[in-house]
Amino acid sequence: MEKKITIRDVAKHAGVSVASVSYALNGKDKLSPETKQRIMEAIEELEYEPSLTARCLSNGDSKLIGVTLPITEKGDIPGVLLNNPFFGEFISGVEYVIRKEGYDILFSGVETDRQYKDWIQRRRLDGIIMLGVYPHSLLKEIKNLDIPIALTDAYEDYTKDFHRVMVEDKLGGYLATKHLIEMGHTEIAFVTGSLKKSPLNNQRYLGYLQALEEADLEVKEEYFIEEHVNFEGGYKAGIELLKRKIKATAIFAIADIMAIGLMKAFRENNKDIPGDYSIIGFDDIKFASYVTPGLTTMKQDIMKKGMICAEMVLEALQKKSSERKTVILKPELIIRDSIRKIK
Amino acid sequence: MEKKITIRDVAKHAGVSVASVSYALNGKDKLSPETKQRIMEAIEELEYEPSLTARCLSNGDSKLIGVTLPITEKGDIPGVLLNNPFFGEFISGVEYVIRKEGYDILFSGVETDRQYKDWIQRRRLDGIIMLGVYPHSLLKEIKNLDIPIALTDAYEDYTKDFHRVMVEDKLGGYLATKHLIEMGHTEIAFVTGSLKKSPLNNQRYLGYLQALEEADLEVKEEYFIEEHVNFEGGYKAGIELLKRKIKATAIFAIADIMAIGLMKAFRENNKDIPGDYSIIGFDDIKFASYVTPGLTTMKQDIMKKGMICAEMVLEALQKKSSERKTVILKPELIIRDSIRKIK
Repeated sequence: MEKKITIRDVAKHAGVSVASVSYALNGKDKLSPETKQRIMEAIEELEYEPSLTARCLSNGDSKLIGVTLPITEKGDIPGVLLNNPFFGEFISGVEYVIRKEGYDILFSGVETDRQYKDWIQRRRLDGIIMLGVYPHSLLKEIKNLDIPIALTDAYEDYTKDFHRVMVEDKLGGYLATKHLIEMGHTEIAFVTGSLKKSPLNNQRYLGYLQALEEADLEVKEEYFIEEHVNFEGGYKAGIELLKRKIKATAIFAIADIMAIGLMKAFRENNKDIPGDYSIIGFDDIKFASYVTPGLTTMKQDIMKKGMICAEMVLEALQKKSSERKTVILKPELIIRDSIRKIK
Repeated sequence: MEKKITIRDVAKHAGVSVASVSYALNGKDKLSPETKQRIMEAIEELEYEPSLTARCLSNGDSKLIGVTLPITEKGDIPGVLLNNPFFGEFISGVEYVIRKEGYDILFSGVETDRQYKDWIQRRRLDGIIMLGVYPHSLLKEIKNLDIPIALTDAYEDYTKDFHRVMVEDKLGGYLATKHLIEMGHTEIAFVTGSLKKSPLNNQRYLGYLQALEEADLEVKEEYFIEEHVNFEGGYKAGIELLKRKIKATAIFAIADIMAIGLMKAFRENNKDIPGDYSIIGFDDIKFASYVTPGLTTMKQDIMKKGMICAEMVLEALQKKSSERKTVILKPELIIRDSIRKIK
């Protein structure tokens, strides 16, 4: 095996001290341009690769980006990632971008009682991408860390201290509902996760209300159902709607995974989609196109969201900038076969 | 052999205490930048690589378990995780177990041309869990690392040097086919990923052949289709089967995600499931129960598989044992609504 090139070899080759090479590697401004140039040439000629451990020590660059998910498990049932395929698609986007730049993902579920800040420091993370909703106290604790942190779908005022990628959720809710109205529906139910806990759900609800109001349609309380944002929640909502014997001909579900649960509940009870109920979802997860009938939905580009989060964090690292950015994506109507036209 | 460089050598060389080097290695913020700098230089000069034992002694376990997936992307489309929800469920199981023990997941796609061994050492991984199929050369390169490595579904002889979690795939293929036969089907198509590249697919195929033979049924070449193991592959297989105008009344797909693709292709062509075609899958991914009709399948407990991989790796770490284990899980028939009984 070849002998490994060390910092000492580089120093000798360039005719400078080890400390000078170290300064050069860590971008410290203590060297003349000529010295820097000589060192860079030596590094290239010897094909020197500074070890990661050493680099970590010198400037804290761990080349690790933390990606976190809130833990949703109950009892002994693992909960992370499982309840919505959204997460897998998002992480796929993140992984793609950071791998190309030589970073790795440190992946972790976040328990709310965990010493999160401590964990970030111990792991010497270069940046963090946080999926999902976290308590204000946790964000407050970490906002002064000098690493870039990107949040998704964060509406609260205090999240302005972070990088953010968001979707125009109100617009999405509006466009989804408007599409149902344009297809002739006037009785439109709304199936959602908690409005209280999630500003995102709330925004989509506001869009729903706006579309109804514009069309002079009544907002009916029996058309509103709050459930967990997963398949089971959608399924329960479907059973509940059937029990209420509602006259709604259409349902807007704020997540595809809930819409797919609704479809299952209706089909099991011999209701046809879109014959008896038209359904529109939100997200455009892969499975929206896999089910039959294909689910019409408001697409947010999930993978792109992950890629943008990663790019924002990497850019902030490279520029050593403390500027915080918010990127807002437009949702897009994807028409498939789950909506019937009413004359 | 060269004398191994120890943490004491580094301390002596840098003129600091062993504790200081240990702090530096563990990223503790107790040192001045100058001290850190000196330690970094000493590490570089001596080519010091903290060994697993040394890390344990200095309490410097990285507490990192690597989880890898092969990269399936084409061009600029991120491919990791996406093509089968299987992966998300598996990682969920791993994460749950290792988090409880204070470990984190270092998650990465593996490009075949990557310096994988180098990456493992640089990251000082305590253990690795590898999902999917990797080239023999890659496994050969890493098998002598002194950390526990767990593989899934690894049949090749040379994988005996690793921890393994497997499923009785041949038995699963046999039971799936036998169930179709017991439901009265005699013309049974087989939809699979590459038999050549995947011993797992091959095992399931052998089980299929065994069941046909036992029942004195003919193996027909036009009933065999090889495609990619994803939704699109299943969809294409469905279109191909329709084109062949086969008389098969039932299809065994070696992965649920392919079976769901088949269902979509048939439904789009106005074929009823199970009226026109009965389908059985393999895996029991969450979506097998979400689709309508619910997909009958051979369940392998995916999350449990992830949990067992994690437990094997942690146990080997704790016992400092070099023993290699293979755990073989039994598949289980899950009956839903995708198979018609033929009188």
